[in-house]
Amino acid sequence: MKLALITAAGASIFAAAVQAHNFKEPEDAIDYRQSAFSLIAYNFGDMGAMLKGKKPFDAEVFASRATNVAALSVIPAEGFIAGSDKGNTEALAKIWSNKADFDEKMKTFQENAAKLAVVAQSDDKRAIKQAFGNTGKSCKGCHDAYKKD
Amino acid sequence: MKLALITAAGASIFAAAVQAHNFKEPEDAIDYRQSAFSLIAYNFGDMGAMLKGKKPFDAEVFASRATNVAALSVIPAEGFIAGSDKGNTEALAKIWSNKADFDEKMKTFQENAAKLAVVAQSDDKRAIKQAFGNTGKSCKGCHDAYKKD
Repeated sequence: MKLALITAAGASIFAAAVQAHNFKEPEDAIDYRQSAFSLIAYNFGDMGAMLKGKKPFDAEVFASRATNVAALSVIPAEGFIAGSDKGNTEALAKIWSNKADFDEKMKTFQENAAKLAVVAQSDDKRAIKQAFGNTGKSCKGCHDAYKKD
Repeated sequence: MKLALITAAGASIFAAAVQAHNFKEPEDAIDYRQSAFSLIAYNFGDMGAMLKGKKPFDAEVFASRATNVAALSVIPAEGFIAGSDKGNTEALAKIWSNKADFDEKMKTFQENAAKLAVVAQSDDKRAIKQAFGNTGKSCKGCHDAYKKD
C-alpha cells in the first residue's frame, strides 16, 4: 500500500505547527530538534555513501531515504523556541537575533530536501546528484552561520 | 509550495531500507529508534491534547502532526537490529524471538498512521477520532507486548 501524503515543506501548515509548540522546558525543545537532526544525518549520510560509491547504489533504498529526509526536514524548526539557546546545544544565540534569515535558510533546506525526494524517484543520476548536493549545501550553509564549530 | 510525496508505509521500500542499515554499534540503532519514537510521541501527544479538548483544535496543525507521525512511523523499525536488546533500551528481547509478529505490529501501526494522515485532511471529526484511536491502539498493543513497563 502506498499513500500519497502532502508534506509541509514551505507551506503555511509548517508555520502553524511551529507556533503551536508544546514544550514544557527549553531542554525538551533542544532534544526534539536534535532527535530530528540525528535522523536526518543518518538518512542523508547513507545517501551520500551510495552516491560516493562507498556502498552499492540501491535506487529503492535511496528513494526511501530521500522521502525520510524530506519528511524530517520540517520537524526541527519547531524546536528552536525562545530561550533554547542555553543548555546542551550547539545552536548559536544569533539564530534568535537573526530569526528571519534562519527561518529562510531552514525553508531553503526543506525545499531542497523535497525536490531531492521527488528526483530520487527517477533514474536521472545526474539530477539526483545535483539535488543531493543542493540539499547538502543548505545543511552546511545553515551550520556555518548558526552552529558552533 | 506543496509537494506530493510517497510514504513508505507498508511498502517494499521499507523492508529494503531496513536491510540496508548502517549502524556501527547497537547503541546507535537504539538511539535512532528512540529519537523517532520521541518525535512520534510529541506529535501524537499534541493531537491527543486537541482531540481531548485540552487545547483548541486547529485542523491545520492537527493535519501537519498527522503527516509527521505517518512519515515518522516508518523510521524506527530499522533500529531494531540484532543485538540491540541490550543497553539503554526498554525493548524486550522477545522482539527478536518473535520478529515476524513484531514486524506485523509495526506494519499495522504504519498503516494506521498513514490512514490517520489522510483522514486528518478531511473535516470528518468522527473519522479523525476513530483513526486516531486506531493508531493509539497499535502503539499500545506493541508496547504491551514488547516494551518494559
